[in-house]
Amino acid sequence: MLPRGRPRALGAAALLLLLLLIGFLLFRGDLDCERTEREASGGGAGPGSLPRSLTPRVPPDERPRPRGTAAFDGDPPADPGGRNGSDCTPPRPRPPKCELLQVAIVCAGHNSSRDVITLVKSMLFYRKNPLHLHLVTDAVARNILETLFHTWMVPAVRISFYNADELKPQVSWIPNKHYSGLYGLMKLVLPSALPPDLARVIVLDTDVTFASNIAELWALFAHFSDKQVIGLVENQSDWYLGNLWRNHRPWPALGRGFNTGVILLRLDRLRRAGWEQMWKLTATRELLTLPATSLADQDIFNAIIKEHPWLVRPLPCVWNVQLSDHTLAERCYSEASDLKVIHWNSPKKLRVKNKHVESFRNLYLTFLEYDGNLLRRELFGCPRPPPPGAEQLQRALAQLDEEDACFEFRRQQLTVHRVHITFLPHKPPPPQPHDVTLVAQLSMDRLQMLEALCRHWPGPMSLALYLTDAEAQQFLRFVETSVVLSARQDVAYHVVYREGPLYPINQLRNVALAQALTPYVFLSDIDFLPAYSLYDYLRASIKQLELGSGRKAALVVPAFETLHYRFSFPSSKAELLALLDAGSLHTFRYHEWPRGHAPTDYARWREAQAPYHVQWAADYEPYVVVPRDCPRYDPRFVGFGWNKVAHVVELDAQEYELLVLPEAFIIHLPHAPSLDISRFRSSPTYRDCLQALKDEFHQDLSRHYGAAALKYLTALQQPRGPT
Amino acid sequence: MLPRGRPRALGAAALLLLLLLIGFLLFRGDLDCERTEREASGGGAGPGSLPRSLTPRVPPDERPRPRGTAAFDGDPPADPGGRNGSDCTPPRPRPPKCELLQVAIVCAGHNSSRDVITLVKSMLFYRKNPLHLHLVTDAVARNILETLFHTWMVPAVRISFYNADELKPQVSWIPNKHYSGLYGLMKLVLPSALPPDLARVIVLDTDVTFASNIAELWALFAHFSDKQVIGLVENQSDWYLGNLWRNHRPWPALGRGFNTGVILLRLDRLRRAGWEQMWKLTATRELLTLPATSLADQDIFNAIIKEHPWLVRPLPCVWNVQLSDHTLAERCYSEASDLKVIHWNSPKKLRVKNKHVESFRNLYLTFLEYDGNLLRRELFGCPRPPPPGAEQLQRALAQLDEEDACFEFRRQQLTVHRVHITFLPHKPPPPQPHDVTLVAQLSMDRLQMLEALCRHWPGPMSLALYLTDAEAQQFLRFVETSVVLSARQDVAYHVVYREGPLYPINQLRNVALAQALTPYVFLSDIDFLPAYSLYDYLRASIKQLELGSGRKAALVVPAFETLHYRFSFPSSKAELLALLDAGSLHTFRYHEWPRGHAPTDYARWREAQAPYHVQWAADYEPYVVVPRDCPRYDPRFVGFGWNKVAHVVELDAQEYELLVLPEAFIIHLPHAPSLDISRFRSSPTYRDCLQALKDEFHQDLSRHYGAAALKYLTALQQPRGPT
Repeated sequence: MLPRGRPRALGAAALLLLLLLIGFLLFRGDLDCERTEREASGGGAGPGSLPRSLTPRVPPDERPRPRGTAAFDGDPPADPGGRNGSDCTPPRPRPPKCELLQVAIVCAGHNSSRDVITLVKSMLFYRKNPLHLHLVTDAVARNILETLFHTWMVPAVRISFYNADELKPQVSWIPNKHYSGLYGLMKLVLPSALPPDLARVIVLDTDVTFASNIAELWALFAHFSDKQVIGLVENQSDWYLGNLWRNHRPWPALGRGFNTGVILLRLDRLRRAGWEQMWKLTATRELLTLPATSLADQDIFNAIIKEHPWLVRPLPCVWNVQLSDHTLAERCYSEASDLKVIHWNSPKKLRVKNKHVESFRNLYLTFLEYDGNLLRRELFGCPRPPPPGAEQLQRALAQLDEEDACFEFRRQQLTVHRVHITFLPHKPPPPQPHDVTLVAQLSMDRLQMLEALCRHWPGPMSLALYLTDAEAQQFLRFVETSVVLSARQDVAYHVVYREGPLYPINQLRNVALAQALTPYVFLSDIDFLPAYSLYDYLRASIKQLELGSGRKAALVVPAFETLHYRFSFPSSKAELLALLDAGSLHTFRYHEWPRGHAPTDYARWREAQAPYHVQWAADYEPYVVVPRDCPRYDPRFVGFGWNKVAHVVELDAQEYELLVLPEAFIIHLPHAPSLDISRFRSSPTYRDCLQALKDEFHQDLSRHYGAAALKYLTALQQPRGPT
Repeated sequence: MLPRGRPRALGAAALLLLLLLIGFLLFRGDLDCERTEREASGGGAGPGSLPRSLTPRVPPDERPRPRGTAAFDGDPPADPGGRNGSDCTPPRPRPPKCELLQVAIVCAGHNSSRDVITLVKSMLFYRKNPLHLHLVTDAVARNILETLFHTWMVPAVRISFYNADELKPQVSWIPNKHYSGLYGLMKLVLPSALPPDLARVIVLDTDVTFASNIAELWALFAHFSDKQVIGLVENQSDWYLGNLWRNHRPWPALGRGFNTGVILLRLDRLRRAGWEQMWKLTATRELLTLPATSLADQDIFNAIIKEHPWLVRPLPCVWNVQLSDHTLAERCYSEASDLKVIHWNSPKKLRVKNKHVESFRNLYLTFLEYDGNLLRRELFGCPRPPPPGAEQLQRALAQLDEEDACFEFRRQQLTVHRVHITFLPHKPPPPQPHDVTLVAQLSMDRLQMLEALCRHWPGPMSLALYLTDAEAQQFLRFVETSVVLSARQDVAYHVVYREGPLYPINQLRNVALAQALTPYVFLSDIDFLPAYSLYDYLRASIKQLELGSGRKAALVVPAFETLHYRFSFPSSKAELLALLDAGSLHTFRYHEWPRGHAPTDYARWREAQAPYHVQWAADYEPYVVVPRDCPRYDPRFVGFGWNKVAHVVELDAQEYELLVLPEAFIIHLPHAPSLDISRFRSSPTYRDCLQALKDEFHQDLSRHYGAAALKYLTALQQPRGPT
């Protein structure tokens, strides 16, 4: 409805009319006050006329109120809009129920992606309105966040991505010393980068945390006068006052200046006002005398506001409580009844020194560790299009029968787990034609395997971790404090968030498999340690066997096990055979389930000098190396049992050769039975449900491969041991 | 300041004066509206005159508004007080910053104690005001909650306990069919049970969850007219309309009646109005024709309100969104912009059927699994006396040097862990003079030991579990789904909430030890399984050795270990010796640290027929049975190392005899190294810090026992193996 993008050439009369119309549409709720305000500021000059009125000096009554203690007043209870002293109209603490709120965030890299998720969790926790998030991202962040939001399926949240790389040229000319790098500066180009029909947006730094409903912040737009275009909270430090040390020369600012961690932007007015030209002009001029920006976009915003003070709408201090080392924020939060947003604006982030930092940290940790699945809450009474896939999922879930003994299995199969790929910084391996990634999955109780695995496998790994949000943080600390793990950049950790009682083993494997970036993958399990030479040996074998030329083969890595904790890992096949003969090692699951690996033919392997073919047989579940484009694991197998067997059946059905490698081996280390296993293995219905899954798997197999799949069914019906 | 407890004999003139004063003090913020309301309701009759105006019929305009859709309106944005249509004054969404809010909750038994903690967590999460909780409890709940709040140390929360058993006689005469039993009815006696100077209180059921700041609810007191004494939300079901089935005869109520899960009580006015007499009269009269209450206190409250409708202040529906099977709450929450309190008022609780239950459950799970430690947040700008011990703790923490290499150790030692004793229903064992409780501690990764332990030890156990709040819920489900565990009522589980990076092993042991209720305790570790006969054998030995007569002795239970997972537990000493000879068993830590158990003299034990004395030696750490009043473990030993050794030194220093039992044994099962161990054992400073702890321990020992402690220091200085 609001006029936008009108040519500046419109005459003064048309502008006046326009202004009245805008005023009516925007401010009809509190018309009296707004009229008074407009009249006080001189009337006529509408938003469209801004560029013409760009004069360095303004009458004193037009300036934002002085930056003294008044700005630290917090939010008086009855005046959430921050319009102190106005009591003539009922306040508008919130926008109408169901109004869509727009939020923009710039985010780049692995670590910022983690940060932005915590911010989003805090925002979603308190929100009552539909949200549209506009994410300006580099390729890394986009990849992470796209997967995350796609699998998160939060109702009434829409996501749009914008390519930060394309925006770089617009800001890369500005010399900048701030740790946010180029990405901080990108906030300046949002009016042109965001869709032209987007009129208002809340812009947030990734290091802010909400402690209140974002709708209350959005409601402050209603209190902008018709000249105001940028809502900001005053800077809560003395930085811009200058003279903090010898030669401390900050950029120009009004008083203490403003902080740009939280911004309300009237994009429509900024575009009409020629914002792009305005900020570039100011930046260019200041850079004639100043060598670089110290605080990125914030310096430039402040310089513009110093020049055009009427552009800024000061916001109550509680909307950006700044927790830097020398913060003055205490004045704000001890007087206010309520903190709304905290801002970790020190490079030290949570390690900042501040007498109340423990309390702020608790608030942050709340959302850091909060189970994001719980945010899949509907907004009651706000019909919105459901997230992609959600409707289908709801229908499938609705069809489940709660009385079915296998209900938990069925539900677990349908569960869409929230996935955070490359949770930690990761450098993809340089492309090599025979390279191979170790693929595995684990939960918290196997974390202690990671260091040993890194020592045994010097190549790339893609690991899926099944964790709660809180465990993901423990995992992060675990990696950070491990010298071995933090030295590795070629291990990609993909967090799959826990939901439901059964371990979704094949879904996890598929996540890890999908993220492997080399042409080959070694499909292993976390309890196995590979021979020290395996990585090199596999690459050599792949090359030698000419798998690259489209040969469909699965290379079998023979598996062994030890029942002892204290165990000296064999450095060669000869040593391994000696241990096997001494009874310290066994072929894998020799005592409980020899069928699983019998086709590998360990007797032949002892003597083998070259790779040899083996035939598929029922229940065969070897550990194999295959091309990355191999069949995916069947996600119907949740919990424990038959999950690998089904995958090997698929390989065989798709006519993969099975080739055993004579020098390859892995050894399984002992571990206490996991809780998941003990809980469900003891359940009497478990076997029945697993059997039902197998039957359905075979039906699907017949449907897909026809008569060729008959052999799997026949094999299954032969007498067999325990599964 | 407000007049309270004035004799009812005051004349009409004085009353009028009083009323004007009250009106002025209470309603000066919105004087105009209140005056209008008062005038409309007939003026003069003040609160003191209530008993005189108790008439069964009132003029229609005095009644609460009809119970139709209007009551489901939710909260119009600008009118949090629920006074629809009033727009003449700014609303008062909150009481003044730092005002103390009063809350009363009735709570009895183990399960309700868990519920009330979730409620309190939700309340603390959103609160900005100091709170005073008035808890009416039975002995079980008091024991649990007293320990919990004492260790929780939440700033600006005061707790008072009231003995529910003493209140029982006042309500036990009322026949009642509701599942809340007598305890529900106790809400009726709060005006006399709570301190006479307490004028207002919010009364909550244990099955409500806050989704907003309780101060907003408190603020609704300001909107009570001078006759209103009870604030309630309308009942969101058709129960009180009657005729739900044949012979469905509910208690009398106004329309749909009111729900008493959330009540605002003007205690001062109720007392003056002769509340006790009033409710007893009504209940007695109704019980002449009705056999019993169906919904406990709620039936009686409704009958009273039906008789005296001017007593009730209807509250906006969002303050008690009722989630029963046939709830009408959807009308409320889909129109409201905001849910304030949800109420699981079905006996099915979270398993209730309701099309939006998943979203409500998410809100509930948020607080169920929320890390309660994070609620130790200060209220900025509200100076309140700190919780007991908090100041001392702050001082001690402030003295720590963050640069000290052992800082983490020091801080962990000082950490006060939140403790929830008897997390699950527990029946103390009947007192027996030679009974013995197995005492141990564990974290999540040892949960799978519990079933086996229960099979091996049929006697009482006191177990400390080191868990996060979310893990505590997993633990609860684990026990509930285990036939073995849920059959045992003599196992007490004490949850100690995780905080800090080091496992506080001795603090955990002390919690479990302090909660043991038998005269003797067997101080074991969770990875050991006792001989099947051990419980009986220990009791017989205690009796035979006459430990009851004040003999200071520690009975040593020899410890063994297996390195194999699959292991057939020996059913006798003879079988154990055979396994030992066969090399399937070893004496405990024989390979790594034989000093720890060498003084037990395993060679002698093989042949022993009777208990024999052994002497303390350096690093001895046997598993022992001792009287319950034995020395506590030294909490300075956190993480791993020397924690038991120090305890045995204390026993020796206090001249406990060390007697090895010839038929007793326990066997350690293998397990993967825990994360805590692997994380810290690999740290180079770990050993140095442990050494520092040991040195300090010996200094304290010398200080305490003088020259007698010299032998420990001398022993320590002899050459030794790894610790």
